[in-house]
Amino acid sequence: MDKNLNEYPHRRYNALTGEWVLVSPHRSKRPWQGQVEKHSAEVRPQYDPGCYLCPGNSRSGGEQNPDYKDVYVFTNDFSALLKDSPDFDVVEDDIFKAESEKGICRVICFSPDHSLTVPQMKVEDIRKVVDLWIEEYQTLGSDPEINYVQIFENKGEIMGCSNPHPHGQIWASQKLPVEPSKKQHSQQEYFQKHGSTLLSDYLQKELQKDERVIFENNHFAAVVPFWATWPYEAMIIPKRAMARITDMTDDEKTALAETYKRLTMIYDKVFDVSFPYSAGIHQAPTDGKEHNEWHWHMAFYPPLLRSATVKKFMVGYEMLATPQRDITPESAAQILKNLN
Amino acid sequence: MDKNLNEYPHRRYNALTGEWVLVSPHRSKRPWQGQVEKHSAEVRPQYDPGCYLCPGNSRSGGEQNPDYKDVYVFTNDFSALLKDSPDFDVVEDDIFKAESEKGICRVICFSPDHSLTVPQMKVEDIRKVVDLWIEEYQTLGSDPEINYVQIFENKGEIMGCSNPHPHGQIWASQKLPVEPSKKQHSQQEYFQKHGSTLLSDYLQKELQKDERVIFENNHFAAVVPFWATWPYEAMIIPKRAMARITDMTDDEKTALAETYKRLTMIYDKVFDVSFPYSAGIHQAPTDGKEHNEWHWHMAFYPPLLRSATVKKFMVGYEMLATPQRDITPESAAQILKNLN
Ligand SMILES: O=P(O)(O)O[C@H]1O[C@H](CO)[C@@H](O)[C@H](O)[C@H]1O
Ligand SMILES: O=P(O)(O)O[C@H]1O[C@H](CO)[C@@H](O)[C@H](O)[C@H]1O
Repeated sequence: MDKNLNEYPHRRYNALTGEWVLVSPHRSKRPWQGQVEKHSAEVRPQYDPGCYLCPGNSRSGGEQNPDYKDVYVFTNDFSALLKDSPDFDVVEDDIFKAESEKGICRVICFSPDHSLTVPQMKVEDIRKVVDLWIEEYQTLGSDPEINYVQIFENKGEIMGCSNPHPHGQIWASQKLPVEPSKKQHSQQEYFQKHGSTLLSDYLQKELQKDERVIFENNHFAAVVPFWATWPYEAMIIPKRAMARITDMTDDEKTALAETYKRLTMIYDKVFDVSFPYSAGIHQAPTDGKEHNEWHWHMAFYPPLLRSATVKKFMVGYEMLATPQRDITPESAAQILKNLN
Repeated sequence: MDKNLNEYPHRRYNALTGEWVLVSPHRSKRPWQGQVEKHSAEVRPQYDPGCYLCPGNSRSGGEQNPDYKDVYVFTNDFSALLKDSPDFDVVEDDIFKAESEKGICRVICFSPDHSLTVPQMKVEDIRKVVDLWIEEYQTLGSDPEINYVQIFENKGEIMGCSNPHPHGQIWASQKLPVEPSKKQHSQQEYFQKHGSTLLSDYLQKELQKDERVIFENNHFAAVVPFWATWPYEAMIIPKRAMARITDMTDDEKTALAETYKRLTMIYDKVFDVSFPYSAGIHQAPTDGKEHNEWHWHMAFYPPLLRSATVKKFMVGYEMLATPQRDITPESAAQILKNLN
């Protein structure tokens, strides 16, 4: 690696979003006197009578969960998007512009067992989550009014997750959201110019360089991206260029479950704590087009910086100017690799 | 206002950044079982012997603060940017791109009194902060290697502010940061097309509509922008099109101090708590060009959502897809206006 990147302040280009991140390698020794998060190390029961996601319990909407045995999906009782709202456009001039957004918000329980987290689940059970993602992507996406399906998981109180029961969400919308739209733009441009997906060329080079690869298996690699913003940010990238998760073979599906488990197990070792993160899958829109330019991937944005209780704050300069990080992506990758 | 915007999920366009925000007006009644922030209502002493920003105290770098009487500025002991680092470019291909970033990070103590916050300060003392901002913008900006000067304030532990002593920061850099660069692009486009600044046309319409204006005085208006992302986000917009804060008349400088105080006083009444926020000034780069398209403004991003202890989490969907809000900008403006 260019030695300057290890020593001096610099900006790195995020080839997927077209934006920049500021890296300050010299600054990791800064003292911290700021907010310390509480961190609940409580052991959870396998069943919590007060949890609205546990089998058999009632939800806030009044509905009762079935006595489900593996995964369970339902429409969010407090959906941010609705399917039956009207279509409208408000375009007054070049400044005041708004448009209706329709969609469906789903909640996926990963397991009936309230006490578990993904790294603690069996691969065969995570595989059921993968299968359900694929099914939901297909079903939701087949609706002509749904053009993008965002699958994600918020884990940990620090990430605004309001329930520790292992679960994820899917928000499916009519419009292409902001982040996938940036990534689509960059991938399109790259594909047109090079005839290969941005992420296949990227991954090939990462595997060669071997500076930011956490681990790989036959089908996937877990990498701290060159442009990582969060201290321990990572991506799971399929080795084969595929636009969407429905393109996976049976082997790839199981390998994804394994990779997801392995990466989150490593995360839990960083600070000896159940590692919080937001994670999600970016893939081709469900707009009926082919999207050869898309190479789907799973992004992990974990907030912790120095310990189980000290997180990176994306505030001030990062909100107003440019996201900033201290520890380099290469050091973070090294730490994660050593915990593998 | 279009009645649909008050009732149904929709996206609003941020004319300044060119990005979208998802608004879910129907969803404000969602229950909250997630993380609750601690909130320290402690009364602070006017002088804290352990504070590295109080007059006469030593800083972590070893230096001693002078016995300053009003404002005091110094170079951050743990600067994220450095002035003496080398120039370099790393461009391997269309994917791996990085470049050196040089700069200067400054800390501004707003007052020697450790116990104060901006809304509690006298207008004449806030005016000294405004004068210092202007001076720093001028001095830092006159360095040919400094092309952008980001003035900001992080307030409150919840915003990662590591010291409650009233203070702000300035990070001056060689490159134009990400957010100002988006805003420059949109303002340029608008100015070329309309011959007036985006924000003068915007402000004129906001004052006419009077749906999102919190208050105005002779020189400024405080507005919840049409595209507000944070629950109580606001902007202070000068009525006169000015590219930079150095363009202000003496009256305008005092009016800015008044407006800053008045808006933050209103904020403190929302949840009866010293309201946390990140705030900052976006203005023309210091690259020697005229920048007629720029209309400087001050943005406030406060995180609180429902109470002194429940904040809006920008996680999951917002990190991976599109920022989302429940309460509409119009309702937020109404609440703030009523507390004026
Ligand atoms: O410089 P401070 O106040 O110690 O640190 C705070 O503000 C910086 C600039 O916005 C951020 O990069 C840090 O994450 C935040 O904790
Ligand atoms: O839906 P939840 O888990 O209650 O809520 C959480 O995730 C949502 C989607 O990422 C966010 O909009 C909320 O701010 C966050 O608290």
